[in-house]
Amino acid sequence: MIYQRVALIGMGLIASSMALAMREKKVAETIVGCAKSAETKATAIKLNLVNAMFDNPEEAASGADLVVLCTPVSAFKDITKRIVPYLKSGATLSDVGSVKGHVVRQLAPLVPDDVNFLPSHPIAGTEQSGPSSGFATLFDKRWCILTPPEGTDQQAVQRLIRFWESLGSKVEIMDHDHHDVVLAVTSHAPHLIAYTMVGVADHLRRVTNSEVIQYSAAGFRDFTRIAASDPIMWRDVFLSNREATIEILGRFTEELFALQRAIRTGDGEMLQEYFQRTRAIRKGVIEAGQDTGETDFGRHSTRPTSPQ
Amino acid sequence: MIYQRVALIGMGLIASSMALAMREKKVAETIVGCAKSAETKATAIKLNLVNAMFDNPEEAASGADLVVLCTPVSAFKDITKRIVPYLKSGATLSDVGSVKGHVVRQLAPLVPDDVNFLPSHPIAGTEQSGPSSGFATLFDKRWCILTPPEGTDQQAVQRLIRFWESLGSKVEIMDHDHHDVVLAVTSHAPHLIAYTMVGVADHLRRVTNSEVIQYSAAGFRDFTRIAASDPIMWRDVFLSNREATIEILGRFTEELFALQRAIRTGDGEMLQEYFQRTRAIRKGVIEAGQDTGETDFGRHSTRPTSPQ
Repeated sequence: MIYQRVALIGMGLIASSMALAMREKKVAETIVGCAKSAETKATAIKLNLVNAMFDNPEEAASGADLVVLCTPVSAFKDITKRIVPYLKSGATLSDVGSVKGHVVRQLAPLVPDDVNFLPSHPIAGTEQSGPSSGFATLFDKRWCILTPPEGTDQQAVQRLIRFWESLGSKVEIMDHDHHDVVLAVTSHAPHLIAYTMVGVADHLRRVTNSEVIQYSAAGFRDFTRIAASDPIMWRDVFLSNREATIEILGRFTEELFALQRAIRTGDGEMLQEYFQRTRAIRKGVIEAGQDTGETDFGRHSTRPTSPQ
Repeated sequence: MIYQRVALIGMGLIASSMALAMREKKVAETIVGCAKSAETKATAIKLNLVNAMFDNPEEAASGADLVVLCTPVSAFKDITKRIVPYLKSGATLSDVGSVKGHVVRQLAPLVPDDVNFLPSHPIAGTEQSGPSSGFATLFDKRWCILTPPEGTDQQAVQRLIRFWESLGSKVEIMDHDHHDVVLAVTSHAPHLIAYTMVGVADHLRRVTNSEVIQYSAAGFRDFTRIAASDPIMWRDVFLSNREATIEILGRFTEELFALQRAIRTGDGEMLQEYFQRTRAIRKGVIEAGQDTGETDFGRHSTRPTSPQ
């Protein structure tokens, strides 16, 4: 038992996975949740994710040892204003937002001195969303980045590290602004690019939608998976990590133009060298355990058989 | 038995998968292969992919009922010039190149009247390459596009359709230039974009390579899988489908700038609507059987468990 009572504000993919993992690992005595929609509340109760569901965050947060904001980032400020008067002295307030600088700047001034404000970002997810999309192993071997503001109580930090480690995560401490640049590269820019490419395909007159879908297995399919991610969550990510995302997109466009120029001028040597370098990075990803080397573009249904 | 003797020129992922599938489905009496490297030849023999391996395409193609060019596209012209004098009357010459217009324009004038020239493109692959990366189910339920030039012998076309269907493919006939536009959207542009994004990450000073790799699970990982594809094959694809690829990249950049502007100006409504539309396309891909709906970014190792 790491926390007596944990309150999850919002009940989507991350919160429902946290609830399932907490139950499995017996990390909390009591888990309570909060959601606006009656359907989400009913689903959370039906799936036995929590001990109780509340309509309003004040009631959910009241008396909790750990309160975790699990809604889209744009709702964080209002929720924090509402729950602050009800937070127990010594409680920890955390979140699971994909952006940290903006969250720290908005929330830190609102949090009273006797509450530990410890932003976190579990780097785990799927293209699904909602309370029934969660699963207990979502955080297994995935990184969770904590960005505790300077001067935070070290005992509270250690406790939150133990919490995430119990759910299966590997924990790393990072400066919030550095977090936002790293994630702009590994997540935010790739998502925007995937959304863009899928949008382009959708608009083309010369190629019908059914052709795009039919022949999607050639690479486009993986873009559609990324571009199926939750629209509201991603809207908020881009708006709240604006500068880093735009910086990386600028670098991306510069690079894309260089490759496009190589294609136009027929510079095969440049292209081949470039593609050889990117292949090496893939090896790093597999060696770091962030993906399997299985010879497969996510084709679960027809798993390759080894040649005899 | 659809063809008596099939010759595969080149022995990479596609050729080795064809060989394995042909053996399993008993599509050919004799399969011969051709590769320059001694290592590739030894591997093909060791894996029992073929009845015989040759150093030179002339010997391999001689007496074959079906000859399939399975090397990178840039080698097609030279190989065709060399094998043409040895092709049997009534034989079919095909290929598995990812580009069709360029191939037709280069090869059609070289092929004698008594040989059926029937370009094909099996839309199947993985990020792996080489003779030991093949597997018999690679073509299962995947599309294979044929682009027979006008006036081709219909019996020869029907026979090649039966051949690909026997390997598990669904076959579609298409004009070669239309093929190249469709593939520029579903494959060539997405690959170049993935290569570019992985290259950008590799160059960044502010974010270390190890950070990029460590936190790749957030979306970047799927780009690294695509960007691990065979460098020489892809160099050739871009150089030989130059115009369509550059046209689609132009549309992509235009669209990317529109989304970037929405981020800069804080237009959340535009972003959200855009992301909702792209999500719908994903549904189409799953419904068309081109991917599974499994809640997973390709995470084979820790398969989600259903909530209780």
